[in-house]
Amino acid sequence: MKVKQKGLLLVLSGPSGVGKGTVCRALLENEPSLRLSVSATTRSPRPGEIDGVDYFFLDDNVFRKMIASGELLEYAVVYNHLYGTPLPFVQESLENGQDIILEIDIQGALQVKEKYPQAILIFISPPSKGDLRKRLLSRGADAREVIEKRLCCASGEMKLADHYDYIVINDQVKKAVEQVRSVITAEKCRPHNLKPFLGSFD
Amino acid sequence: MKVKQKGLLLVLSGPSGVGKGTVCRALLENEPSLRLSVSATTRSPRPGEIDGVDYFFLDDNVFRKMIASGELLEYAVVYNHLYGTPLPFVQESLENGQDIILEIDIQGALQVKEKYPQAILIFISPPSKGDLRKRLLSRGADAREVIEKRLCCASGEMKLADHYDYIVINDQVKKAVEQVRSVITAEKCRPHNLKPFLGSFD
Repeated sequence: MKVKQKGLLLVLSGPSGVGKGTVCRALLENEPSLRLSVSATTRSPRPGEIDGVDYFFLDDNVFRKMIASGELLEYAVVYNHLYGTPLPFVQESLENGQDIILEIDIQGALQVKEKYPQAILIFISPPSKGDLRKRLLSRGADAREVIEKRLCCASGEMKLADHYDYIVINDQVKKAVEQVRSVITAEKCRPHNLKPFLGSFD
Repeated sequence: MKVKQKGLLLVLSGPSGVGKGTVCRALLENEPSLRLSVSATTRSPRPGEIDGVDYFFLDDNVFRKMIASGELLEYAVVYNHLYGTPLPFVQESLENGQDIILEIDIQGALQVKEKYPQAILIFISPPSKGDLRKRLLSRGADAREVIEKRLCCASGEMKLADHYDYIVINDQVKKAVEQVRSVITAEKCRPHNLKPFLGSFD
């Protein structure tokens, strides 16, 4: 039986280097019903990143105009760059029953929850502090001082994990993906997501 | 990675005839880590039911003494008989990290939530009113007037579904079991169930 429901807004977030991008990609491969919301940013593309696919790469002026006109679900300054989620795409998709996933930083995630309390916040956590350091070092994309700055931030960010709805420990990507899929299944069983079904018994 | 956690108290409940017993049995087969809490009752055993396995079959006097001494997590009168959940077994299991499942009626479920708010209430719902009638008739265990009384109760009971944490529509037993398993996985990812893990980052 297929019960008609509004889409879920899933927010995947966590400290830099925790592997949330990897979890997110694996999730999208395993859950074809999910759609990724593309974020906007003012930072420069990294090698291989494509405009409109990985991010919308915007000029600072354009981005600030979008903030002013309320066209962003959330935005944040991260390492001197602006990041944000264009609102209209998300709203329309949810109304059509499409589940949407955002992969954003912690500041952005908490902002989404404030503007859209039904959003489901999932904190992707490293299994341990030592593991996070290892990941950041092995990624090799960043200078040593950037890594140290990120590690320092991560400690503070872990304290925000209990503002989230769920915490998924990224020990093995496959297991983390299974846990996020379970969260999706469980959330679709929430009474507030089944109002039309319950109404059919009146 | 195995994170040490307190056990979950799962409460499976729903209108009579919805098939919650079937879902519960299939769940226990698929989830060996779950343990069923055996209820106490003053009703007579049905053919094939075993004392201490299906229920603790108790005299009315004994049951009332347990109520008076606070030895029950919940109890209720259903069709002129007393049903209840002996508390010490449940408490000890949860402290040892053992997940426990209760299969009880709706009055009992709401009572458990009051006494133990961390309990996870799952409402097993029929896919439709018509389907519930069909199930009660085909069970053939009860007189026609008992069935009509149960159907009448079920309408009122459906209105209590939104006091539950989750609603699982029992359309196919296999799918219902998968949904309950997802609820278990998701609930283990709740921040309040991961306090010792989060503390390890301080």
